[in-house]
Amino acid sequence: MNLVFKPLASALLATSLALAAGAAFGAEPLPSWNDGPSRTAIIDFVNRVTQQGGADYVAPDERIAVFDNDGTLWAEQPMYVQLAFALDRVKALAAQHPEWKTEQPFKAVLENDMAALAQSGEEGLLKMVMVTHAGMSTDEFNQIASDWIRTARHPKTGQPYTEMVYQPMLELLYFLRQNGFKTFIVSGGGIDFMRPWTESIYGIPPEQVIGSTIKVEYQLKDGKPTLVRQPALNFLDDKTGKPVMIQYHIGRRPIAAFGNSDGDIQMLEWTTSGAGPRLGMLLHHDDGKREFAYDRKSPFGKLDHGIEESKERNWSLISMKSEWKCVMKFECEAQQSK
Amino acid sequence: MNLVFKPLASALLATSLALAAGAAFGAEPLPSWNDGPSRTAIIDFVNRVTQQGGADYVAPDERIAVFDNDGTLWAEQPMYVQLAFALDRVKALAAQHPEWKTEQPFKAVLENDMAALAQSGEEGLLKMVMVTHAGMSTDEFNQIASDWIRTARHPKTGQPYTEMVYQPMLELLYFLRQNGFKTFIVSGGGIDFMRPWTESIYGIPPEQVIGSTIKVEYQLKDGKPTLVRQPALNFLDDKTGKPVMIQYHIGRRPIAAFGNSDGDIQMLEWTTSGAGPRLGMLLHHDDGKREFAYDRKSPFGKLDHGIEESKERNWSLISMKSEWKCVMKFECEAQQSK
Repeated sequence: MNLVFKPLASALLATSLALAAGAAFGAEPLPSWNDGPSRTAIIDFVNRVTQQGGADYVAPDERIAVFDNDGTLWAEQPMYVQLAFALDRVKALAAQHPEWKTEQPFKAVLENDMAALAQSGEEGLLKMVMVTHAGMSTDEFNQIASDWIRTARHPKTGQPYTEMVYQPMLELLYFLRQNGFKTFIVSGGGIDFMRPWTESIYGIPPEQVIGSTIKVEYQLKDGKPTLVRQPALNFLDDKTGKPVMIQYHIGRRPIAAFGNSDGDIQMLEWTTSGAGPRLGMLLHHDDGKREFAYDRKSPFGKLDHGIEESKERNWSLISMKSEWKCVMKFECEAQQSK
Repeated sequence: MNLVFKPLASALLATSLALAAGAAFGAEPLPSWNDGPSRTAIIDFVNRVTQQGGADYVAPDERIAVFDNDGTLWAEQPMYVQLAFALDRVKALAAQHPEWKTEQPFKAVLENDMAALAQSGEEGLLKMVMVTHAGMSTDEFNQIASDWIRTARHPKTGQPYTEMVYQPMLELLYFLRQNGFKTFIVSGGGIDFMRPWTESIYGIPPEQVIGSTIKVEYQLKDGKPTLVRQPALNFLDDKTGKPVMIQYHIGRRPIAAFGNSDGDIQMLEWTTSGAGPRLGMLLHHDDGKREFAYDRKSPFGKLDHGIEESKERNWSLISMKSEWKCVMKFECEAQQSK
């Protein structure tokens, strides 16, 4: 962590995360999960890999668990949070760019014309991402992202995005770490957009966050080193890119993987096809009342092939609607304090 | 760790590493270091950053230390260990490639003609690296590298390469970790060549090893996923590449960096130019009797500009000759058992 989200002392952090995960010492694990097939499968898996001398025992070093972020750990509707960030950045920078009033995709953004923005296609989106994510130092971008995430609010709930994280998944992260697992994020999102807050919210330090990257260049200015973000993609950490980045970054195959969309299929394939005990799970967004109901046709977080493949490969589909007692962190906390 | 070097149980590993580092509980730190300027600087730095309430206190999360590998943690003379590996692999594969008898650079390797090999230049070397490091799965390469490192011997001492690691640096790694640091390797060498043994030898797990990478492709063969190593460079983790990879992989600036060659300059610049307490050190190979004496003119591990820059930027040059009581792990252990 860096400029804004200065790390709390480890002890404090561990305590606050434990409280956030509703995990008093000796309490039942995964309190926000109903006693359903997913909770049972998770607890059974953890019991098997941690039982010394058991046939499925896995040494702590090998207990690597990987998590997608958007739609798996926090909400990705009505749009990816990072897209909301990019739109806000365009508006914040508009005064310095009078030409954007007539230039797409910026015109569409400034006029809140989402149809025109969508029409600008991948090329338009990439243009917007590069303008808002590149051309500054890594330290500066970190500051911008930190400031934004602290102040921005979800359009539907009015909550900070960091309250729109799934309480049951926080508990899962905590439960795994309590059992010797090392937890990593493997997201299609931008790596440096996540890192300012993943440690305080998820208990995952920056070095265990894997994501998409843009090119970064090392420059010396008057003898002072700077890492400057360049307007060019370095690596897209999605689909087949996920197992590749797992190899580059972690260097060993995880034994558990959690995702929610077709972009996570290869990560789950790679994880669950290794020898020994394996766990693969996809969160199914089937709860239109408490969150959003979407799968095969959503522009964000499409889950289509993954539904079929989960049957073939014995992955669990987590039903948000029937398996979670509550969904968002802020809601679960409100319920608990009643 | 993976196929061959199965991780020992954590407790066992910690114990054996502690013994290797000569660190009985309560013992003086860095026992193989003479009471000289480098040892003093290290201990002073660690005392300052760990003193709660002190002006230079650094929270444990931010105590990131990065180490070059070749020439910093283990010997790189008479040639990089990975080059010795590549030469051995060419010989091992020669029976399947009769054409190599007449094709450079392979002919030179098979005839032990190092002058002709050098003449083949970068192009020849790259050709050799690609033939020996690509075209197999990541699991297969891991097995090949693991088998080789277990059986290969250093040409001068006849010792396994994993005994040709610097005992004082093992103690330094251990001392830093005992004080809450997270230790990373940031090497120009191939990442997957190091990972099979860094945990058992250095106490550094695969996910904390950063190095050069070749392209890796995700493939499904009859439904079974494989990561296949491609004959193309992905990222060269040397010089300006080192701070860039530190950003991608770690996501925050280290507070201590250790290297030995001009390839480490940018890593030390980036590390030591951050705010707050910083430590930058270059190991100077000035001990022709116990190791190898080389700096400005060596083809491997050239240290030239770094000597001047260390003065400007207040980096320490560690004199192997005057500051280390013993050098190699196997020698230090032999001395201690007398």
